[in-house]
Amino acid sequence: MASKKILIIGGVAAGPKTAARARRLDPEAQITILEKGKYISYAGCGMPFYLSGKIHDFDHLYSTSYGVKRDPEFFKSERGVDVFTGVEAISIDRTNKKVVARDVETGEEKIFEYDKLVLGTGSNPITPPIENLDLKGVYRLNHLTDAAAIKQALDAGEVNDVVVIGTGFIGMEAVDAIFSPRRTVTVVEFRETLLPGILDPDMGKLLYKSFYEQGLEGRFGEKVLKLEGEDGRVSKVITDKGSIDADAVILAVGVRPNVKLAQDAGLTIGETGAIAVNEYMETSDPDIYALGDCAENTNLLTGKKVFAPMATYANRQGRVVGDNVTGRKSTFKGILGTGVLHCMDMNVARTGLGEVQARALGYDIETITVATFDMTHYHPNSNKIVLKMIAEKGTQRILGIQGLGKGEVAKRADVVAALIQYGGTLDDLLNVDLGYAPPYNTPIDPMVHAGNALKNKLEGIANTYTPAEVQAKLEKGDDFVLLDVRTAQQFNMRYIEDERTKQLALGELRQKLAEVPKDKEIVTVCVMGSRAYEAARILEGAGFNNVKFMEAGMEGWPFDMEDF
Amino acid sequence: MASKKILIIGGVAAGPKTAARARRLDPEAQITILEKGKYISYAGCGMPFYLSGKIHDFDHLYSTSYGVKRDPEFFKSERGVDVFTGVEAISIDRTNKKVVARDVETGEEKIFEYDKLVLGTGSNPITPPIENLDLKGVYRLNHLTDAAAIKQALDAGEVNDVVVIGTGFIGMEAVDAIFSPRRTVTVVEFRETLLPGILDPDMGKLLYKSFYEQGLEGRFGEKVLKLEGEDGRVSKVITDKGSIDADAVILAVGVRPNVKLAQDAGLTIGETGAIAVNEYMETSDPDIYALGDCAENTNLLTGKKVFAPMATYANRQGRVVGDNVTGRKSTFKGILGTGVLHCMDMNVARTGLGEVQARALGYDIETITVATFDMTHYHPNSNKIVLKMIAEKGTQRILGIQGLGKGEVAKRADVVAALIQYGGTLDDLLNVDLGYAPPYNTPIDPMVHAGNALKNKLEGIANTYTPAEVQAKLEKGDDFVLLDVRTAQQFNMRYIEDERTKQLALGELRQKLAEVPKDKEIVTVCVMGSRAYEAARILEGAGFNNVKFMEAGMEGWPFDMEDF
Ligand SMILES: Cc1cc2nc3c(=O)[nH]c(=O)nc-3n(C[C@H](O)[C@H](O)[C@H](O)COP(=O)(O)OP(=O)(O)OC[C@H]3O[C@@H](n4cnc5c(N)ncnc54)[C@H](O)[C@@H]3O)c2cc1C
Ligand SMILES: Cc1cc2nc3c(=O)[nH]c(=O)nc-3n(C[C@H](O)[C@H](O)[C@H](O)COP(=O)(O)OP(=O)(O)OC[C@H]3O[C@@H](n4cnc5c(N)ncnc54)[C@H](O)[C@@H]3O)c2cc1C
Ligand SMILES: CC(C)(COP(=O)(O)OP(=O)(O)OC[C@H]1O[C@@H](n2cnc3c(N)ncnc32)[C@H](O)[C@@H]1OP(=O)(O)O)[C@@H](O)C(=O)NCCC(=O)NCCS
Ligand SMILES: CC(C)(COP(=O)(O)OP(=O)(O)OC[C@H]1O[C@@H](n2cnc3c(N)ncnc32)[C@H](O)[C@@H]1OP(=O)(O)O)[C@@H](O)C(=O)NCCC(=O)NCCS
Ligand SMILES: [Ca+2]
Ligand SMILES: [Ca+2]
Repeated sequence: MASKKILIIGGVAAGPKTAARARRLDPEAQITILEKGKYISYAGCGMPFYLSGKIHDFDHLYSTSYGVKRDPEFFKSERGVDVFTGVEAISIDRTNKKVVARDVETGEEKIFEYDKLVLGTGSNPITPPIENLDLKGVYRLNHLTDAAAIKQALDAGEVNDVVVIGTGFIGMEAVDAIFSPRRTVTVVEFRETLLPGILDPDMGKLLYKSFYEQGLEGRFGEKVLKLEGEDGRVSKVITDKGSIDADAVILAVGVRPNVKLAQDAGLTIGETGAIAVNEYMETSDPDIYALGDCAENTNLLTGKKVFAPMATYANRQGRVVGDNVTGRKSTFKGILGTGVLHCMDMNVARTGLGEVQARALGYDIETITVATFDMTHYHPNSNKIVLKMIAEKGTQRILGIQGLGKGEVAKRADVVAALIQYGGTLDDLLNVDLGYAPPYNTPIDPMVHAGNALKNKLEGIANTYTPAEVQAKLEKGDDFVLLDVRTAQQFNMRYIEDERTKQLALGELRQKLAEVPKDKEIVTVCVMGSRAYEAARILEGAGFNNVKFMEAGMEGWPFDMEDF
Repeated sequence: MASKKILIIGGVAAGPKTAARARRLDPEAQITILEKGKYISYAGCGMPFYLSGKIHDFDHLYSTSYGVKRDPEFFKSERGVDVFTGVEAISIDRTNKKVVARDVETGEEKIFEYDKLVLGTGSNPITPPIENLDLKGVYRLNHLTDAAAIKQALDAGEVNDVVVIGTGFIGMEAVDAIFSPRRTVTVVEFRETLLPGILDPDMGKLLYKSFYEQGLEGRFGEKVLKLEGEDGRVSKVITDKGSIDADAVILAVGVRPNVKLAQDAGLTIGETGAIAVNEYMETSDPDIYALGDCAENTNLLTGKKVFAPMATYANRQGRVVGDNVTGRKSTFKGILGTGVLHCMDMNVARTGLGEVQARALGYDIETITVATFDMTHYHPNSNKIVLKMIAEKGTQRILGIQGLGKGEVAKRADVVAALIQYGGTLDDLLNVDLGYAPPYNTPIDPMVHAGNALKNKLEGIANTYTPAEVQAKLEKGDDFVLLDVRTAQQFNMRYIEDERTKQLALGELRQKLAEVPKDKEIVTVCVMGSRAYEAARILEGAGFNNVKFMEAGMEGWPFDMEDF
């Protein structure tokens, strides 16, 4: 029997991982990768660290941990895989199981046969309708060649007033890479806050507050219309609300699945615009697989199809496709939209559904936002974090978590992702046997505190307003007492400036109940939320019947920022 | 109706957490804590950080994050709880629901009535049969007074040649606290390796290797018989194998539940020696609850009762008891033995069953040990870790994980703990949607690689020897080739010195297959395991039929240590 021909289109993550796994399972197969670009098997996700200088050597973005470059020669010698770079697949003849490809330099065409065809054609950056994108100084950060171009400009000192258009993961990674006190960095976001769709607006605002304090300029709800240039080089970004000086612009408004080849071949394209696949990653043609950025995913919580272009899916699906093209039957069940980001010293993580998403889908939900330390507060490495937890009312099923802060949040999203996979409830969360030691967490882990606080809220023990609700009450002119139960010292450093604010430390509250008006609504506030919760319980226990506390305390309060 | 009397014995973690939660739920209840010691509500787990100087102020061990000391005054004012320190409960009159207590200074007796009684009497350090434990310079590290005594000795320069007896969590935290290049620190362990029962011996050995390289001296399988002194001060530790100079000794051979009060009152004591409780934390008397170190736990995997004295259980159970003594019905389902430790720059984590434990319980298991980077190797913060995964054959149900290294392992144990709680399999693990970004992990998370590698092993794709098995083969004089597939440069830095060792880099293997003898068993080895796996697949694919690779590579090889 002739050896099986496995032909793979696309040579970044999805393609090479498929090839590597398939080779280990089938030593006889003829495995070929076609890649129209110059580089293969590279860490697109590592580009920001190359720009920031954390990775010194460009080659490290496509080298093994033992220093060997993953070029076609590597794939030949270490993996027994033939890689052709600079070769673009231009059509698929499904009847005869052939792919026509073209050398991008010479234009020469070549035919590749296949028994199993794998599409790992990835995604392309979206080009928004902005005038003059062809000016010098306008960059993207999607391909390795983009990183090289930006790095060159950085080194030449041409990147001083930077505007990043779009604040999704890639936009914010670009910000992380280039932000420096020596530069003016502005982000322009069409939607309401940072990381829209990734974080709920309240969490996006808190995150922005921390970046703003470090010097990042944000323009939200603002649409870029055109760029202006001088001598062919970008000098201004013009929005619907004004103009921003710029000698460099990074466009990061999202990516779109690259499905042309599949579409032309008559393969089913899903409602998301990506290639439709089943759980074996088979397209509508059982001899053709698609995976990575070009293929559709299923959200395990909602059952809905989603476009979720992430390297982790490309790699994990590559292992599945490597199995299936060599005769196994492995499955990739779906995703929860877990994501994690390090930007300007902040950790950001999320999984599942956000509040906005869950409500839009019609879930009957409750949320809580807590500020806590990521580990025992007395440990010198401890840092504050803010966690927002979303659960379904009634079932108390966990739907999602979002976290941010200088402290650890990635672990918390991962654990919650594991729980959501099983339909875990808040009770399940508090029963997970999480390891505890002072340098890692608190005896009751912060995320369990968040879950418990949400349970308290669902059961009427914790009655809260969100910071946004308190802000709205203040603006509306509601009559209530904002009872700040922090120590006088803490209070004096920063407080909500309003005549309805009154300071009375928790330690004095039981003795000084008479100072709290019984006929008014009381809203307690503290640093992070737990003392305000305690104070609210004290007041309720003492017969005050209109008491709430403000979630997440002053840590969750972004409204005293300038411009906000 | 008279307010409910909730009486709590024990004022460290279990007692105060119960009180705090109960207060929030029942503002009317009379809540009283009796504590025979001087300090309450303190962070025993924080003591090592006080000794090491990471925490400067002794008071921080019992202060809130907002700087208020958690003394009886705090409990009165902030929690409405009466705390009596220096008061020991000496008997329980269950019929009349009364506790007799005695002032430890004056001997005065006092009666406390209860509707609900809560036992949080904790544990006491075991005193082993070692002569002369009353010499000066002999310490424990269980109570706050112990920490104060050691700190005083440290500051006085009296702690130079230290012997720590016992290498469980507390022993190793003591080591972490006092280890310094200016001191000689020796650990003496009766059992085979570090952290016995917590880590499998192979993992314990690897951990010891890293400590040994930093200067820690370990004596294993050695039993301390007596101490010798000069002028009333310890000078030598005498074991069954020799003697060790010492001017300070820290005894850390474990703790035993403090059940006297319960036992005298006729409450059921479990087979583990701790107080028997159901999932509501009720003892055999439904009006008496027990929790924390004095109470028994259930291992969720085995269903067996276990004694597991951990602060996290004390706190989480405290919340449950706080619920139940005020009329709710909350449950604490059980534990998995998750534990985490930071010691001498190494992170250690484990959950579930170790290999030794699982085999002893009759499980039909397979294990794998992998070395990996904790995040993308090109990121400057990346570090190596070693993960050992244990799963049941057939079902592929995950039974446990153990991890160690300078890199992140705590998260991995937590995620696996969440999976084990649901009976998760290796397939479930690879389907969890873990967040990925370069500063946090690899596109396929290290623990998923470990799970995949174990799956490969169970399915005959990865055929391995453990390092210990390779070492045994070498010593037995087996005829085989130890094929080191690292680069020549890596090989030359450190390799297994034996005439059966042969270096041939993975990149050359496909071309130089003729150099590999076909008639001999081949065992491939590399830095961490993955290249050796690749090499083994290449050889198997090329018709070699007696090939294995060594798990975890040179990173998992402790046998070239001196003394080993
Ligand atoms: C700056 C940045 C940071 C990121 N950070 C993260 C992160 O932290 N975590 C995460 O999970 N993901 C991250 N991602 C996303 C991740 O890089 C992508 O999900 C991943 O690269 C997708 O891999 P892929 O192989 O499916 O597609 P791609 O990387 O898009 O590669 C597809 C390849 O196919 C080639 N190709 C397309 N059509 C043809 C054709 N007809 N013939 C020949 N070749 C063709 C293209 O030239 C391209 O090289 C990041 C992306 C960027 C840009
Ligand atoms: C150095 C060290 C490090 C640790 N690190 C960790 C860690 O990282 N993670 C973790 O989970 N756990 C850790 N622990 C364990 C943790 O400290 C204990 O599990 C926890 O303190 C148990 O709390 P408890 O309230 O049940 O019991 P205890 O802390 O033992 O307190 C019980 C109290 O009850 C009092 N008492 C007993 N009998 C009576 C009586 N009859 N009348 C009045 N009072 C009485 C005792 O005086 C004592 O103060 C560590 C322990 C130590 C010593
Ligand atoms: C590197 C690449 C070629 C994949 O090659 P690979 O050999 O499958 O490498 P991986 O690290 O994914 O997998 C290692 C293999 O060894 C196994 N393994 C990992 N560590 C191991 C260890 N210590 N011991 C034994 N086995 C180990 C894994 O299970 C896996 O084998 P399997 O897939 O057969 O189960 C491909 O992922 C790639 O090109 N990546 C770069 C591009 C990229 O991912 N970009 C986006 C992210 S920035
Ligand atoms: C501190 C101590 C008195 C407990 O008091 P506590 O008020 O229950 O404190 P915790 O931090 O455990 O819990 C905080 C409460 O606020 C809630 N909470 C925490 N953060 C919150 C936030 N930001 N917003 C709203 N609620 C929050 C929690 O859900 C919890 O309430 P609940 O139990 O009613 O659900 C007790 O644990 C103790 O004495 N600990 C020190 C000793 C010790 O643990 N030693 C061993 C470890 S080293
Ligand atoms: Ca607070
Ligand atoms: Ca290796």
